[in-house]
Amino acid sequence: MRAEHIECGGVTSPQGYRAAGLHCGIKASGKPDLSLVVSDVPATAAGLFTLNLAKAAPVLVSQEHLATSGGRARAILTNSGCANACTGPQGMSDAREMAALAAAIIDCPVDQALIASTGVIGVNLKMEAIRSGVPRVADALSAEGGADAARAIMTTDPFSKEAAVEVTTDMGTFRVGGMAKGSGMIEPRMATMLGYLTTDAAVDSSLLYRALSDACRYTFNAITVDGEPSTNDCVFALANGASGVVIDEALYPALFEGFRIVAHNLALGIVRGGEGATKLVSITTTGAATEADAWMAARAIANSPLVKTAVHGADPNWGRLVAAAGRSGAAFVLDRARVRIGSLVLFENGRPFDDRAPLAAQYLRGTTLEIEVDLGTGGQNTATVWTCDLTAEYVKINAEYRT
Amino acid sequence: MRAEHIECGGVTSPQGYRAAGLHCGIKASGKPDLSLVVSDVPATAAGLFTLNLAKAAPVLVSQEHLATSGGRARAILTNSGCANACTGPQGMSDAREMAALAAAIIDCPVDQALIASTGVIGVNLKMEAIRSGVPRVADALSAEGGADAARAIMTTDPFSKEAAVEVTTDMGTFRVGGMAKGSGMIEPRMATMLGYLTTDAAVDSSLLYRALSDACRYTFNAITVDGEPSTNDCVFALANGASGVVIDEALYPALFEGFRIVAHNLALGIVRGGEGATKLVSITTTGAATEADAWMAARAIANSPLVKTAVHGADPNWGRLVAAAGRSGAAFVLDRARVRIGSLVLFENGRPFDDRAPLAAQYLRGTTLEIEVDLGTGGQNTATVWTCDLTAEYVKINAEYRT
Repeated sequence: MRAEHIECGGVTSPQGYRAAGLHCGIKASGKPDLSLVVSDVPATAAGLFTLNLAKAAPVLVSQEHLATSGGRARAILTNSGCANACTGPQGMSDAREMAALAAAIIDCPVDQALIASTGVIGVNLKMEAIRSGVPRVADALSAEGGADAARAIMTTDPFSKEAAVEVTTDMGTFRVGGMAKGSGMIEPRMATMLGYLTTDAAVDSSLLYRALSDACRYTFNAITVDGEPSTNDCVFALANGASGVVIDEALYPALFEGFRIVAHNLALGIVRGGEGATKLVSITTTGAATEADAWMAARAIANSPLVKTAVHGADPNWGRLVAAAGRSGAAFVLDRARVRIGSLVLFENGRPFDDRAPLAAQYLRGTTLEIEVDLGTGGQNTATVWTCDLTAEYVKINAEYRT
Repeated sequence: MRAEHIECGGVTSPQGYRAAGLHCGIKASGKPDLSLVVSDVPATAAGLFTLNLAKAAPVLVSQEHLATSGGRARAILTNSGCANACTGPQGMSDAREMAALAAAIIDCPVDQALIASTGVIGVNLKMEAIRSGVPRVADALSAEGGADAARAIMTTDPFSKEAAVEVTTDMGTFRVGGMAKGSGMIEPRMATMLGYLTTDAAVDSSLLYRALSDACRYTFNAITVDGEPSTNDCVFALANGASGVVIDEALYPALFEGFRIVAHNLALGIVRGGEGATKLVSITTTGAATEADAWMAARAIANSPLVKTAVHGADPNWGRLVAAAGRSGAAFVLDRARVRIGSLVLFENGRPFDDRAPLAAQYLRGTTLEIEVDLGTGGQNTATVWTCDLTAEYVKINAEYRT
């Protein structure tokens, strides 16, 4: 099995998918705000959704559709600029109408249309914009439209996130494509802000769900920008079988690997494009007593505003890493803990190595950084979470988001 | 029972306490960095300490001293500018020497000297500065020295925190005084960064511990600046009996009230002086299914960077309050939830009231703010946590802390 990156690939890289994106009138800026991804034939479909109890209307409607359709879908219609969250009965009715509009224009059962929304919470959708936009975005569908679709799901994202791979197996070749958006209110626990994976492999819905869950665990579910799981998080996967490759248990590792690579690429793009972010930082915990502890400590460090500001200032302030690990709830043995920044060990067996601080500061002036904290319990468990630095620009973006 | 605020009061407002603060040479800035508080006679003493597993050496030594002395103390010696945390065996030996120096100069058993340190983690104490400073700070002790002592425990605090009350009961009058410092790495779970309460009531050590715990629960333990319980958190209480008032079960409410008022005042001072803070915000949750849920949701909201930046920008973005409550882990019923900013209800029974947003924005331009989120479960539990806004100045302070 071999997985090869496809240059400039996205959701339409696999066979049998078309996509489009355009401005329909929701964003005052005139930027693209309506995105449609369509499979030419009914695809098996799976979704992972936010654990936030304040679920947005489109999340509820898409969950319902995946259940009633038995995990089949033809289309995903997404608007940006408005989250349609906390919008009460009107919001539910608007979300249902969005799905109905998509189903009508591509001629499929309504529960084969999935929907998603992202943007400001607590504001109703401009339905006239959606109503006039859906026929136009359907007209624009093409096998080259992946990039437009990816741009139309952006909110504060500084760039669009797309990826694709071609997976070659003994049983034939299939492709996996994807797109995603960030870039604030990001700490997905079951999914991410918005992520979409497409494949032209044939996959039954239970295997598809398993591949999506397994891949998200180490990708979308292992990133954070600000520790804020949102009301609208969802990741969808579509598998339309157009490649002729049928995924069974034997080929499952190939599908998993395809999903994992694309999701990893998109997830890291979300962090790199986090609100105000200037650095991508991997936080790895080792020596954890349990796997849960490894994740708990990695998340605590990755979400620590003191760690994130120190990284921003290129300050090798390893004391903050130790403090965050120590308060995380994970078992932690200070006298056997170790902190590594890049290749430099700054703290080990209870002793600081501050003569290495200048070299570590130099390393931290880079934009892609690796930090490792050994929790000192002697356990073998590890976890990696990707995060970004916390900057004055993050504050500015979010203090002025609606003004 | 009546409790009256004492103007400009502090740790030396109760009878039989002296204090002093001066620069001994730890801070490069030349600002005060050594603080001593002494009770003329052995006082009963209680302490609450950080739950962080990376406990600093002075925390370990003070815990040990409270245990071996049976809850008695004469003095609290504190340095700022260096946390003596993550400093290994050298740090423990330095902390023990600090306590020994204090005990020798005031002539008491070593375990009646409590110590605390605050400042940069992972740096060893400049012991020559402590050694030459202790005799000087002991010479400077006076019943008017509370303010100097409070200034000498500051790190990035923009102002010092002191408070005192006089409590009048049928059995006589006693006083409670206190001082504290912030102002980053603040989310005390059992204690705060550093807090000191003194009283001239006579209190046995179990009642003293109970009063300290009860008072901290709603004061020091109900604040956050950045969700970061530190390595050095501790709160001490000393009771020397100089007023002649003996606290028994009947008078316990008077002691609790005295402690609560002083601790409340200090705790709010810590938040108001939080790193970069421009606003003090109380977050109250109501309608929670359990008391634990009430606290969990209030803490999640109070620590949400999106809530804190919206408050900074005076943006009545109630959707972020709902999203934070929904992801907090507490039971939450969106359709019956309610959000109140000041006196304005912006969301209720699943419906936004956005026509009130301009008034709410005006309210949010103030510096002391009240926000309430009803979790909609129909439960009767409530909690209040105090927080501050998140500003570019917070990022600046912490990106440049050691440079």
